[in-house]
Amino acid sequence: MNRYSKQTRLLVAIDCIIFGFDGTEMKILLVQRGMEPEKGKWSLMGGFVQPDESLENAAKRILNELTGLSKIYLEQLYTFGVPERDPIERTLSVTYFSLLDLAKYKVQLSNEFHAEWFPLKKFPHLIFDHNEMVQAARNMLKYKASLHPVLFELLPEKFTIPQLQSLFEDVYQASFDKRNFNRKIISTGLLLKQKEKDKINSKKGAFFYKLDKKNYRDNFHAILRFIPNPNDLL
Amino acid sequence: MNRYSKQTRLLVAIDCIIFGFDGTEMKILLVQRGMEPEKGKWSLMGGFVQPDESLENAAKRILNELTGLSKIYLEQLYTFGVPERDPIERTLSVTYFSLLDLAKYKVQLSNEFHAEWFPLKKFPHLIFDHNEMVQAARNMLKYKASLHPVLFELLPEKFTIPQLQSLFEDVYQASFDKRNFNRKIISTGLLLKQKEKDKINSKKGAFFYKLDKKNYRDNFHAILRFIPNPNDLL
Repeated sequence: MNRYSKQTRLLVAIDCIIFGFDGTEMKILLVQRGMEPEKGKWSLMGGFVQPDESLENAAKRILNELTGLSKIYLEQLYTFGVPERDPIERTLSVTYFSLLDLAKYKVQLSNEFHAEWFPLKKFPHLIFDHNEMVQAARNMLKYKASLHPVLFELLPEKFTIPQLQSLFEDVYQASFDKRNFNRKIISTGLLLKQKEKDKINSKKGAFFYKLDKKNYRDNFHAILRFIPNPNDLL
Repeated sequence: MNRYSKQTRLLVAIDCIIFGFDGTEMKILLVQRGMEPEKGKWSLMGGFVQPDESLENAAKRILNELTGLSKIYLEQLYTFGVPERDPIERTLSVTYFSLLDLAKYKVQLSNEFHAEWFPLKKFPHLIFDHNEMVQAARNMLKYKASLHPVLFELLPEKFTIPQLQSLFEDVYQASFDKRNFNRKIISTGLLLKQKEKDKINSKKGAFFYKLDKKNYRDNFHAILRFIPNPNDLL
């Protein structure tokens, strides 16, 4: 008998936190849980890891089975493991998260499932510790967005500053003064003003901008000047 | 019979990656593995999660049992879970890491254990996927150090620029030109020059500096100007 055989084996689940931006606001993808306990309540997309699949492959399979989404880049976030987190039996949950441009993925969401997008500003209470998982994913996103142009990747090639402000407000759970936000984002030197205006969303119209891709790699930290201090985030 | 009872349960281990700075160089804490397979080879501090302990408590217990260290702040890093990572039986490993000021903790390392500090520049080959775990912890550290003053917390209150350079070189696995490093770190405005010199480590002497604590919270991103682009790190 070796030291392995004496050990307790545990159930291991995956839960997926999927955020999306639809051009106006940040959303979160949820499903109605299909099994007891808490059957019918809103939940992250979750399931058990199978004996011969890696954690990442389990995450991809579960997300696909519950929503129809495939070929999504998933990133491991955190493993939740307090003994009492699942009332039926101790279950670890390895969480994965992703951030989608909804313009690209909306069509893929299959009707045969009960997956639904909710505004990140207001979504139903979730089962177990899933609200805590969502908060961890939001914190990770704030952190990443302070060093990487991940949020700009969610915007169309040409976007307006009000659109960018709405995205930043949803991600940083903050509200920025319009004039200040405008001034500070321009002062980063990361944006290229275009000649055309968006006249659909306001009478006066708002100029379109593009991200200055040559510049952002070296100067992206300019973004830190006006977002909440990332030292407060983790 | 519910959906839980049909599932496979898995072994879950913890592995701890402990870095330390001794004033001159970065080190990593390793132990000689006490069980088969790979008994006697160098390894991270690892063990199995017990039925009624949280992951974090398991990490603290295991680290204490193998090294004598206690009251260490441990941060969860990543869960390694490919099916074949342990040759005896599939075992997930939840990794935790920490960064210690060795001046404070050296005394605690008990002689009854075979734990040993190795320079991070040159340490023995580790069992299983432990080298990959160390690399993940190094990447996390580079990332954190670009937004947080974690490295300054390892230095004594008064430190010299050569000392700071050695720390940054070990963390970023880079070598910086002495004159450039000097100029750029001064230009961040994060350091306060002291009147005294350290005359122990060179004939000419090197001025002591302190971190400008009032300034670093708001201007810490100045550090991004001269470290490798964090977009390349993750």
